[in-house]
Amino acid sequence: MTDSSARGVYVAALTPMNDDLSPNHAAFASHCRWLLASGADGLAVLGTTGEANSFSVDERLALLDALGEAGIPGRALLPGTGTCAIPDTVTLTRKALELGAAGVVMLPPFYYKGVGDDGLFAAYSEVIERVGDDRLRVYFYHFPAQSNVPISHDLIERLLKVYPTAIAGIKDSSGDLSNMLAMCERFPGFGVFAGSEQFLLPVLRAGGAGCISATANVTVAACAEIYRQWQKEEAGRLQEGLTAQRLAIQSQALVPALKQIMARHSGDQSWIKIRPPLMPLAAEQAKSLFDALDATGFSLARAA
Amino acid sequence: MTDSSARGVYVAALTPMNDDLSPNHAAFASHCRWLLASGADGLAVLGTTGEANSFSVDERLALLDALGEAGIPGRALLPGTGTCAIPDTVTLTRKALELGAAGVVMLPPFYYKGVGDDGLFAAYSEVIERVGDDRLRVYFYHFPAQSNVPISHDLIERLLKVYPTAIAGIKDSSGDLSNMLAMCERFPGFGVFAGSEQFLLPVLRAGGAGCISATANVTVAACAEIYRQWQKEEAGRLQEGLTAQRLAIQSQALVPALKQIMARHSGDQSWIKIRPPLMPLAAEQAKSLFDALDATGFSLARAA
Repeated sequence: MTDSSARGVYVAALTPMNDDLSPNHAAFASHCRWLLASGADGLAVLGTTGEANSFSVDERLALLDALGEAGIPGRALLPGTGTCAIPDTVTLTRKALELGAAGVVMLPPFYYKGVGDDGLFAAYSEVIERVGDDRLRVYFYHFPAQSNVPISHDLIERLLKVYPTAIAGIKDSSGDLSNMLAMCERFPGFGVFAGSEQFLLPVLRAGGAGCISATANVTVAACAEIYRQWQKEEAGRLQEGLTAQRLAIQSQALVPALKQIMARHSGDQSWIKIRPPLMPLAAEQAKSLFDALDATGFSLARAA
Repeated sequence: MTDSSARGVYVAALTPMNDDLSPNHAAFASHCRWLLASGADGLAVLGTTGEANSFSVDERLALLDALGEAGIPGRALLPGTGTCAIPDTVTLTRKALELGAAGVVMLPPFYYKGVGDDGLFAAYSEVIERVGDDRLRVYFYHFPAQSNVPISHDLIERLLKVYPTAIAGIKDSSGDLSNMLAMCERFPGFGVFAGSEQFLLPVLRAGGAGCISATANVTVAACAEIYRQWQKEEAGRLQEGLTAQRLAIQSQALVPALKQIMARHSGDQSWIKIRPPLMPLAAEQAKSLFDALDATGFSLARAA
């Protein structure tokens, strides 16, 4: 059983794009730098929020290299590297290690459904063996609504037995707090990250590692404040305010909503660009988002 | 509105593998040649059955090149090219056109769920525009149980209006015959392929194009016989026998079951190799499969 070294508030960073929908490396590095300066403990780049699966492997490798060249410290990174194909997952994971990443967030292969724990055990084992690097720290990515391939507790236990060092934790984006708490209890030292800052405080209080969150792109400072204060009683009030902001944002499709918020608060409309099949919010959706968000007293300026 | 040029029995060809789970090019070409000699009108290589999503883009490109080098005629091919990432889909589609493929079977980007018709319209449009080739013929791949991203009739209509030549048809793997028949009626000239030979006869009688089927890897000769005879009354009896075989095979996980059947009938146990997360059948599953299949009077030798 391993002790999770990654702890705290990790942002599932957005990926800004150019007019031709290619990734904008400079804007990406600048956003990542701003997130770290705003209190993020680290960056789960190239995840669902970063539209990683809408990029080719080469585009993802180039984005990781761009962060390295921009001086973003590798230790701050938990890149998403799980794909449908073992060779691609291995390639991306090796690149993350080359940059000195603290770990990787690894989706299971998500095309085939109903493959069962034996198939997922074989897939994760094959990747770990092929990467063959003692520095590897794998954080499972449990996101049943998106991947339709859930990570069971039995699978975690089986893999922990064989790879006690490489298996480091999980990002739980199920939205089911009881699942997160059950893992904190069953697997001591295993790094349980809530997939939403809505559950940051209860997960920390249960011994979990923190959160890896999409909405933290715009709520990072408030998340960091809770992480600093979680052992104090007033953290409960902070969590209530943060939860209200999270719920306001997720009233719309999450990735377009976050890009819309970044565009409004930065004044840079190119933030809205997004790769199909995701689409920018329609005008009435954006208005509804901002009405809901403004009602919570949200301010990105304050966060920055 | 276009007239579908691809018609008849297309096999979603299996991909044989080496011991290290790399694709076995020679065995792949040999299997494809055998399928064409056994009555297949064409080969939908690199689909769900071909484990395409478990291969990197480079591995898929190399498999397509291997078929070209082995003398498999490009016109017989309907390669699967749809991925989660537009650049990858474009790369694979261009390779298919370079080989002279009759068309491509294109999954929608399947990571993000609930994206709606606007997002899928944008994704398919972006691919068609980027490929920018008059020879392109797109067959949608409707497989809601696997992709969780269904292709609606309204989406088809919208894309047909803008790209009347490029949008050529659909592989419908929903298992819902009424959906196939409704498309035959609503979109004359649009090539509706049943995703299982279980529906070959009713789809042909409704004006559909044929079938693109996984199980046709081992039932190809019987499928071809129905396609030759479909206007005759006795075709109904042939369809009944074929349906019994299909149902026997799909009593187990389809891709491992088909590889198991190929291993038994060829005597070559390397056929069983499969990439995780798919797994070979357990011994008792294989026995149950063969018991069910033998009860139908199935013989691969007869088919060959």
